[in-house]
Amino acid sequence: MNFDQQIKQKAAAIEAVLKKYIPQEEGYQRTIMAAMNYSLLAGGKRLRPMLMSETYELFGGREEGIIEPFMAAIEMIHTYSLVHDDLPAMDNDEYRRGRKTTHVVYGEAMGILAGDGLLNYAFETAFQAFDRITGLEAGEQSGLYQKAAKALQVLGKKAGIYGMIGGQVIDMEGCGKAVGRERLDHMYQLKTGGLIEASMMVGAILAGATEEEVLKIEQIAGDVGLAFQIKDDILDVTGTLKTLGKPVHSDEKNEKATYVTLLGLEAANNEVRGISERAITTFGSLGKRNDFLLDLIKMLVNREY
Amino acid sequence: MNFDQQIKQKAAAIEAVLKKYIPQEEGYQRTIMAAMNYSLLAGGKRLRPMLMSETYELFGGREEGIIEPFMAAIEMIHTYSLVHDDLPAMDNDEYRRGRKTTHVVYGEAMGILAGDGLLNYAFETAFQAFDRITGLEAGEQSGLYQKAAKALQVLGKKAGIYGMIGGQVIDMEGCGKAVGRERLDHMYQLKTGGLIEASMMVGAILAGATEEEVLKIEQIAGDVGLAFQIKDDILDVTGTLKTLGKPVHSDEKNEKATYVTLLGLEAANNEVRGISERAITTFGSLGKRNDFLLDLIKMLVNREY
Repeated sequence: MNFDQQIKQKAAAIEAVLKKYIPQEEGYQRTIMAAMNYSLLAGGKRLRPMLMSETYELFGGREEGIIEPFMAAIEMIHTYSLVHDDLPAMDNDEYRRGRKTTHVVYGEAMGILAGDGLLNYAFETAFQAFDRITGLEAGEQSGLYQKAAKALQVLGKKAGIYGMIGGQVIDMEGCGKAVGRERLDHMYQLKTGGLIEASMMVGAILAGATEEEVLKIEQIAGDVGLAFQIKDDILDVTGTLKTLGKPVHSDEKNEKATYVTLLGLEAANNEVRGISERAITTFGSLGKRNDFLLDLIKMLVNREY
Repeated sequence: MNFDQQIKQKAAAIEAVLKKYIPQEEGYQRTIMAAMNYSLLAGGKRLRPMLMSETYELFGGREEGIIEPFMAAIEMIHTYSLVHDDLPAMDNDEYRRGRKTTHVVYGEAMGILAGDGLLNYAFETAFQAFDRITGLEAGEQSGLYQKAAKALQVLGKKAGIYGMIGGQVIDMEGCGKAVGRERLDHMYQLKTGGLIEASMMVGAILAGATEEEVLKIEQIAGDVGLAFQIKDDILDVTGTLKTLGKPVHSDEKNEKATYVTLLGLEAANNEVRGISERAITTFGSLGKRNDFLLDLIKMLVNREY
């Protein structure tokens, strides 16, 4: 099976996992469950849960009942951030992936509540991992509780004001202003890198990786996020509507500072190359093998679409 | 010390706890920390953390490092719900407790993000209890991990679509429509009762209460929430602007179904009395003593303001 077939098969498997954990549409409050599921099941590449489960496997993790709730949780967090990003007071987007956005279909108030519901439900879902742990033998429990606790702490931090939300704030406040390289780095690190770091670190922690290994995974994931984002800046200039499926030169129009406006196209390309090589070298230094994960990382940093 | 002095002293102590756990206003994203703290430190009676810590004490809990993160967490969840409730697309309120609401001061986009940040940070804060557990002797850890896990599950559920958020959805959709008693009960149970139940149950669980005891605490807290809410309906009709500090007859103007419009004033008053007595009887059946908590419960169900 080649990489394209593998990634499709794995995405389908994650879709099935996700469907196991979404809320039932029932009760007087069923509209919010419908709005949450509308946004959760709108497609998407499921990259974050994929990175999580592949990193879990890399470190020898084998407990579906523990990793799956976290896989569903990270996708719920990613989804809530999109639902709130699309709101009129934020980016005011009416379409996403060819479908009307949640607040357009369900109204603005429900868009806010559905996002809140998804964020809260993400943690509720992750907490389901505790049920699996409680079902195990007493001797195994303490170590696993500690791993799940650490995983929750990382998930929380990387999703919040010291992670993704923090990055959104910096992005929002920096829009249209001349910003320096340090601020831009920090914004990319948090906004794009936050959930990628959470995905890979949670996988590593739950599988029992050492602190040193988790640190390396954080560096790899951070580099993946950064390279991915710089590539995004480059494609906004060099891509076409056809290859990207979205308008190009939007950064220029929005007077946004990007790696390309700061460094120029060639230097930005060199940055991507350097960061990608660093990530792959760090990956090699782990001395563990998961060829699909390595290919996935390469795909993310080298994408042309 | 009489009850009024006690409640003031305890509220001040909780204020100090809260200040230990609020985010530092630092980094490129410091605006969101400022917005979160603006809403968190806007005053308020701190009833939820108070109910939590008193219930913790009722069952003999003595670990500050474990209960305090949860006390801060429940107040953060309560606060985020107010910040989002006040947004233009929701209740569109410009003032709360005499201060401008968060989105009026910081803008609508930041109001959304600050609410998200508070909800996420609530869980991050609760997760700090794990640090305390990890610092204890190995023999004590497993049991405490299990209690913290159970407490998190209850906190998550009661704050989310099966709790507070669910109640908000029912309230929003029911507004202006003729609704039945069952729907109204369910709405009050979730919207008002959700966080009160979470507060008292988390306190009980963390202190090691039995399942039967936690169930009784849930019933008491549910009754407190329900009586509190029906009393709110009554005061909207019988109160004055002066005693309430907010406009009266607002339910009538909004064509809202309430216990008073459904049952009439006398029957509504009888309901409050019946529910309050039931709560106090259940409390007595626990065979544990915390006179302040009992007085607090009585105050909540009998309030005239």
